[in-house]
Amino acid sequence: MHSPALAVAPATRELDAALRHKIDQKTKPLGALGRLEALALQIGRVQGTLTPTLTKPHIVVLAGDHGAAKAGISAYPQEVTWQMVENFLAGGAAINVFARTNGIGLTIVDAGVAHDFGVREGLVDAKVPPAASNQSGCASDEADYRRRVVSRGGTASYLEGAAMTAAQRDTAMAKGAGIVRKLAADGCTAIGFGEMGIGNTASASLITHCLTELPLAACIGRGTGLDDAGLVRKQALLEQALAAWPGRNDRPLDVLARYGGFEIAMMAGAMLAAAQAKMLVLVDGFICGAAALVAARIAPDFLDYAVFCHASAEAGHRAQLAALDASPLVSLDLRLGEGTGAALAWPLVRAACAFLNEMASFESAGVSEKI
Amino acid sequence: MHSPALAVAPATRELDAALRHKIDQKTKPLGALGRLEALALQIGRVQGTLTPTLTKPHIVVLAGDHGAAKAGISAYPQEVTWQMVENFLAGGAAINVFARTNGIGLTIVDAGVAHDFGVREGLVDAKVPPAASNQSGCASDEADYRRRVVSRGGTASYLEGAAMTAAQRDTAMAKGAGIVRKLAADGCTAIGFGEMGIGNTASASLITHCLTELPLAACIGRGTGLDDAGLVRKQALLEQALAAWPGRNDRPLDVLARYGGFEIAMMAGAMLAAAQAKMLVLVDGFICGAAALVAARIAPDFLDYAVFCHASAEAGHRAQLAALDASPLVSLDLRLGEGTGAALAWPLVRAACAFLNEMASFESAGVSEKI
Repeated sequence: MHSPALAVAPATRELDAALRHKIDQKTKPLGALGRLEALALQIGRVQGTLTPTLTKPHIVVLAGDHGAAKAGISAYPQEVTWQMVENFLAGGAAINVFARTNGIGLTIVDAGVAHDFGVREGLVDAKVPPAASNQSGCASDEADYRRRVVSRGGTASYLEGAAMTAAQRDTAMAKGAGIVRKLAADGCTAIGFGEMGIGNTASASLITHCLTELPLAACIGRGTGLDDAGLVRKQALLEQALAAWPGRNDRPLDVLARYGGFEIAMMAGAMLAAAQAKMLVLVDGFICGAAALVAARIAPDFLDYAVFCHASAEAGHRAQLAALDASPLVSLDLRLGEGTGAALAWPLVRAACAFLNEMASFESAGVSEKI
Repeated sequence: MHSPALAVAPATRELDAALRHKIDQKTKPLGALGRLEALALQIGRVQGTLTPTLTKPHIVVLAGDHGAAKAGISAYPQEVTWQMVENFLAGGAAINVFARTNGIGLTIVDAGVAHDFGVREGLVDAKVPPAASNQSGCASDEADYRRRVVSRGGTASYLEGAAMTAAQRDTAMAKGAGIVRKLAADGCTAIGFGEMGIGNTASASLITHCLTELPLAACIGRGTGLDDAGLVRKQALLEQALAAWPGRNDRPLDVLARYGGFEIAMMAGAMLAAAQAKMLVLVDGFICGAAALVAARIAPDFLDYAVFCHASAEAGHRAQLAALDASPLVSLDLRLGEGTGAALAWPLVRAACAFLNEMASFESAGVSEKI
């Protein structure tokens, strides 16, 4: 049993019959809106009403660095993490464009980037501080941790020990929850997440492997563009990372501390808080999927609130989705992250809610029903 | 060789290298925007520029009745066609909701509905008149035609002869082209089409069968919801329709006159005119796909301008798409028509154009490239 702070109540089923009736009476053949009908039902359940409204949609992009990135698990150098944060702040990244185009608010968060941004307009500083000396649990002690930390932020390398201490993980999750609660208080009822962190595809692979029945090889892909040799090296490194965890288990919080990035831990906490606040949670690709997997293993009813937005081109994502019994809305061969899949799928979610509220019924429109 | 009026010039390839370079220099891993990258390239080709803009997106919904509908090829009575047109005019149908939600203009056209709407605000009267006595070609003569026409509009039944005369087909195509040219003159550069017509799934099946190598059975589906018995009856009726065409051929204009609805013929003419006007053409589901198939068989370069928006749940649509070598953007199990799939996919098209114009490059954003 996890902390009550992480508990999620299921979305209500009390209105299911009424929602289905309302959907079926719309001027269209039965079931003719396909996936959007299931989505409308889900939105009605989440909000517990026949007339749900999705207000102030927002995407939170969490950035963090990974100690293991220096070992060569990515096609890009680690400094791309902070450089891309600068790009987010300047409005030039894909997620900026898609959020703008689709009317979605955007928040950029430093969850633990190995870079000193200073105080910056538009950047939420949620950097997870170094481990406190009295921390305990699955991770190593402070002296060991400090020895392994190689930069001004980011996790330690899981090739040598836990990526973060239990206290850091809890801090990251709490900070994520805090960001979400603030947005909820501001009227946001649909929230998506994105991430930036060189090396975080590897982190997501390890988490997915540990929390599912999937073999490691099925969870590994080329990330942002590894070549064949890079892929072989990545697999060897991740096998080493698994071998380096003697007390290995499949408890989601332990797995998160061992292999997570701060951005993934913060996102898992944020997702659970969003479900607690009865928000609809837009899940992006493979890395956000790993955070959703952690959230679902902690609180299975979290999935009532989750909309899986896109199937990415990353090998392992489809397997991860199958383990979550999830069918994403779109499949556009994206492999970018940043929340771009969530931003692109948002208009479909909005459309599902709109047809439920705005379409005429056979009766109101005077249209004949099926013979 | 078809009439020069139906000719379509290919979209330019002159800027391909420059467009690809521009896409590849955006701050994202190479190819990471997947399908949207191919779409951005297509939009650049269609407009012949590195900075395309998609202005005044519009969907034209064409409604028409089918003489064969009375034989029992649909789950709905024929009067649903005009009742749904009323629903469109009142703003209560799915296409109204989705067009509104996604910022798309909407035009409703009476292409030949078996109903007298009178003069109506918001309804374009493009009803195809009865056949003139001096028409010739593949269709039967006027007396025969009049004998078979059973209503105040709509086609004759293809179970007994041609659905329309060659002159009517040409009129329908010309009217469709006229509607498109008016929208183009008004500044529209992206146009989608939708349809409404009880029985038109059957019409699309026959057209698809005649213009591809596909067996009839592979082209037939449940339409708006036929049960098993209905499906068997529909297949028998369509086999009868094929048997009733002794001079059967695979010339697109002949097939269109024989089995088309007026809304399908009007749409085929409209699609060709849109490509001629260098507009991007958003193709909806199975029935619009049949019109696109006719257009592509008349002018193969039409496909340079076509964006296939969604794969519908209608059996036969995937086969039709494969015959067109088309991979739709989304697959949401829709089987509604009205242009809803085009309206729902539009934000993806808009996003593809936006990233090409608005994203920063590695150089402009100061982001490191791949190692």
